[in-house]
Amino acid sequence: MNGKYKAFWLDENNDVVIIDQTKLPFEYETVTLKTADDAIWSIKDMLVRGAGVIGNIAAFGVYLAVKENSKITYIRKKAQEIRESRPTAVNLMWAVDIMMEKLESDKENLLEIALLEAINITDGDVERSAQIGKYGCDKFEEIMKQNGKTSINVLTHCNAGWLAIVDDGSALAPIYEAQRRGIDIHVWVDETRPRNQGANLTAWELGKSGINHTIIPDNTGGYLMQQGEVDVCIVGADRVSAQGDVANKIGTYLKALAAHDNNIPFYVAIPEGTLDFDIVDGVKDIPIETRSEKEVKYMRGLNEKGEVQELLITPKDSKSINYGFDITPNRLVTGLITEKGICKANQKAITSMFK
Amino acid sequence: MNGKYKAFWLDENNDVVIIDQTKLPFEYETVTLKTADDAIWSIKDMLVRGAGVIGNIAAFGVYLAVKENSKITYIRKKAQEIRESRPTAVNLMWAVDIMMEKLESDKENLLEIALLEAINITDGDVERSAQIGKYGCDKFEEIMKQNGKTSINVLTHCNAGWLAIVDDGSALAPIYEAQRRGIDIHVWVDETRPRNQGANLTAWELGKSGINHTIIPDNTGGYLMQQGEVDVCIVGADRVSAQGDVANKIGTYLKALAAHDNNIPFYVAIPEGTLDFDIVDGVKDIPIETRSEKEVKYMRGLNEKGEVQELLITPKDSKSINYGFDITPNRLVTGLITEKGICKANQKAITSMFK
Repeated sequence: MNGKYKAFWLDENNDVVIIDQTKLPFEYETVTLKTADDAIWSIKDMLVRGAGVIGNIAAFGVYLAVKENSKITYIRKKAQEIRESRPTAVNLMWAVDIMMEKLESDKENLLEIALLEAINITDGDVERSAQIGKYGCDKFEEIMKQNGKTSINVLTHCNAGWLAIVDDGSALAPIYEAQRRGIDIHVWVDETRPRNQGANLTAWELGKSGINHTIIPDNTGGYLMQQGEVDVCIVGADRVSAQGDVANKIGTYLKALAAHDNNIPFYVAIPEGTLDFDIVDGVKDIPIETRSEKEVKYMRGLNEKGEVQELLITPKDSKSINYGFDITPNRLVTGLITEKGICKANQKAITSMFK
Repeated sequence: MNGKYKAFWLDENNDVVIIDQTKLPFEYETVTLKTADDAIWSIKDMLVRGAGVIGNIAAFGVYLAVKENSKITYIRKKAQEIRESRPTAVNLMWAVDIMMEKLESDKENLLEIALLEAINITDGDVERSAQIGKYGCDKFEEIMKQNGKTSINVLTHCNAGWLAIVDDGSALAPIYEAQRRGIDIHVWVDETRPRNQGANLTAWELGKSGINHTIIPDNTGGYLMQQGEVDVCIVGADRVSAQGDVANKIGTYLKALAAHDNNIPFYVAIPEGTLDFDIVDGVKDIPIETRSEKEVKYMRGLNEKGEVQELLITPKDSKSINYGFDITPNRLVTGLITEKGICKANQKAITSMFK
């Protein structure tokens, strides 16, 4: 699988090479993970992020543990540490559990088993991403037909591209598929304060892939929708409740409101694993992470000399607060684009497609 | 009037001292305007901004022209240049027109007339700001009563405080009045990308005035409203149409949508002069200014040494677009808080209060 995935890959020693996403878009640096501890550090310090890629690196982290020391007690210990590296990432637990199930049932060829299973888990994401891309792009073509247009303007928030889920992402997968189909596509990229995943990661990804895009402040999308400059909104999600309420990057809800107010379709692209059947009312019951106020008060960028630097961008003594996510109620979601097809965002439709 | 106003004042030579708002909140610097050209430069380069203060400095700019040279031909020439310094600022034209009317009708004591008239214009703003503060704060007390609370959480966008309109602003005037009345008030300050007037100016103003506030990314307000953390939204406006559609800083519309979705009152605080009776449908007919993409792609702040610096915060080659304003349709506006009282945002109510 050398070079098989875009967010990370195996080198000639079968170690895992990742793109350091904390450096993007200002510096492109790769880091080689040789041990389970390297993998844990890369997840904890967010060198890798995005639901899918975290799960993949967790699986490869277990593989790296085996590579270091094939004693099952060592592997179990490292597996537990990987589980704890980002405690709210559902995909991470899931991937480690699968890895350990395999390793606990077989006692020989652990290294080969671990490598194959980590690849298997990752290939599953690639397949799901491709399916989401196809269903989503079919929808784009339908929207263009309805609007009588030969081009399409898509608005997205945060990063749900190939830096987040191999190999085309979730929300961005239909966009990459549109490019392959030769569709004239343009993407409005929400900056996505305070961590700027839109301006930093999505814009970089789309630029690398040669896709026409424009970065906009998070405040701008409503005006663009009022002016008919957006044909469809598409975002990823961190968790979707059994009735289709969507936890995604803070600010998603505001764009869903604007889309609804202007009769613009608002889609959420997710693999099945993002559905949480234990929670029904997402607005009430999905817990929201509070992060450091430093992410609001400081900004990273390139200075005149081309060096990465950080600046204080508020009065020093003003407080700030930093919620990571908000909840978009299902009534504002036109549909969920999944690897099994497009599904309305209500409990009945979700149950009938996935249970 | 030495020290009479907070955004600018006259010194012992009767020259005009302004706070350089381009330096806030990182550096506090005053600049002394001695000539009409100084006033023009301060408006053009946005050392002063905000509808009210621009009008005031325009009026004092005409006075400074008289101070330099009392020939009416010279004064006329400078008045015309002041008019052209920010062509879309309605208040600026209005203030220059009043000044010139006075100066054209009197031929003696021009300097004294100019000074008195500039002060007169500015004092009018002070009076209107105070009235808006009182009506708005009465509304706050009503909301607290309705909610059965002894404190109030207010969300505001951009800067409509004493840096924008002497002497308490428009949207912030009820907040300062609440402080005087001893009300337990806390303000959520939208950062207001891309120019960060919230994080830079409103937070600084409120901090200077000792008002409890928290800076939030523009993405955060919707979540806070979902969680019951906002009792009322209040913003200023650049222009309000005859039927009550509101042109204000980009992103205002998104907050109005969220307030509406969560049954939170959304008020727009304006002096009568902000009403534009020539435009009815604001969404269709109010023109929106496009500004430099540099404001999106670069960010100003303080480095570790305490020096002001600018960083590139996006991929260098990504495009960006920068609309200054959006339009909040009247159906999302609970009411207009004006110097004459609170008025529903519809043509009938506006006409009956103001015509």
